[in-house]
Amino acid sequence: MKRTYSVILTFLIILLSFISIGIVVAQKSEVSQAPNGIKLPAGYKNWRLISSTHRTDNNTLRVILGNDIAVQAARSGYTIPWPDGSFIAKLVWKDVTHEQWPDATIPGTFVHAEFMIKDAKKYSVTGGWGFARWLGMEQKPYGKDAGFVQECYSCHVPMKHNDYVFTHPAITP
Amino acid sequence: MKRTYSVILTFLIILLSFISIGIVVAQKSEVSQAPNGIKLPAGYKNWRLISSTHRTDNNTLRVILGNDIAVQAARSGYTIPWPDGSFIAKLVWKDVTHEQWPDATIPGTFVHAEFMIKDAKKYSVTGGWGFARWLGMEQKPYGKDAGFVQECYSCHVPMKHNDYVFTHPAITP
Repeated sequence: MKRTYSVILTFLIILLSFISIGIVVAQKSEVSQAPNGIKLPAGYKNWRLISSTHRTDNNTLRVILGNDIAVQAARSGYTIPWPDGSFIAKLVWKDVTHEQWPDATIPGTFVHAEFMIKDAKKYSVTGGWGFARWLGMEQKPYGKDAGFVQECYSCHVPMKHNDYVFTHPAITP
Repeated sequence: MKRTYSVILTFLIILLSFISIGIVVAQKSEVSQAPNGIKLPAGYKNWRLISSTHRTDNNTLRVILGNDIAVQAARSGYTIPWPDGSFIAKLVWKDVTHEQWPDATIPGTFVHAEFMIKDAKKYSVTGGWGFARWLGMEQKPYGKDAGFVQECYSCHVPMKHNDYVFTHPAITP
C-alpha cells in the first residue's frame, strides 16, 4: 500500500512539474519576435530614463529608456557612437489633455514600444543598429517581413551625424 | 630614528583620513535640504518610469519617476491613496525643437526636480504629502521658509480626488 502511494505521489510531482514548465513556456512565448528575429527585451519597462519627447505631427508623448550600457553611455556623453550592447527603448502614447490642467498633455492610449539595439558588426547594413517595434497593448510585432528595417533605417539616416539616433539624452544635475 | 618615522607615518595616515572624511562630507552636503527639512532623495535619477507630460503654458517636458513603493503602487493601480513610503519625482526641462524633426519637442535646459513624499501621518496637514523642489543644475532648494509647501499644496488641492496627485500613471503592456 505504502509503495502504491509513493508511486502516485511521484507521478503527481512529475505531472505538476510538466504543467509548471508549460505555463512558464506559454508566458514566455506570449509576445512574438520581430520579423528580423529580434525578441522583445525582457524587463524594458524597468530600464532607466534617457529622455522624453512630444510630437505634434502625430500627437504622441514618448519616453526613451535604456539598458545599463546605454544609460552609462548617455550619462557620460559617449554616444557617438553608442557602445555595442546599448539597448534604447522608446515608449509611445497618444497624448490626451489633463482633466485639471488644459495646457498639459499626458499619456493616453499606449501606441507601441520600439527598440534600437547596437551591434556594429551584426547590424552593419543598418548603421550598426537592430530595429524592432511591438504594437499596442497586445505587443504585435511590426513589419510583414525582415525588410521592415529598411523603413526604420531610412527614416534614421538624417541622424547619421548622431549615430542614427534621434534621441538626445536629457541633461540632469 | 625608526620610531620617529613610525610616528610621522601614523600622523600622516590620520591626517589623510580626516581629509578623506572631509571630502566625503563636503560632497554629501553639496545639495542643501529643502526649507521644510526634506533632503534630496539619493539616486532619484535611477528610479523607474511612472509617466510623462508636456505643458504648453510654460513650455516644459516632464518625466515622472518613482521609487520602488511608488512604482509598484502605480503598476498595480493602488494609488488612491498612494501607500506610505511612496516617493514621486518630477523632472522638468524647458522644451526645444528637435533639429531634424520640427514637430518634435525635446528636453532642453533642466528646470527643476520636484518631489512628493507620502507619509499620511507626518504630512497630514498637506494631504499626507511632503513637498520639495530643487532648482536648476545647481539644485538650489525652493522656498524661503517651510511655508513654501502651502503653495505646493494649494495647487494640488483640485486633485484631491486623485490623492492630490496630478500624475496618472502611463499605461503599458
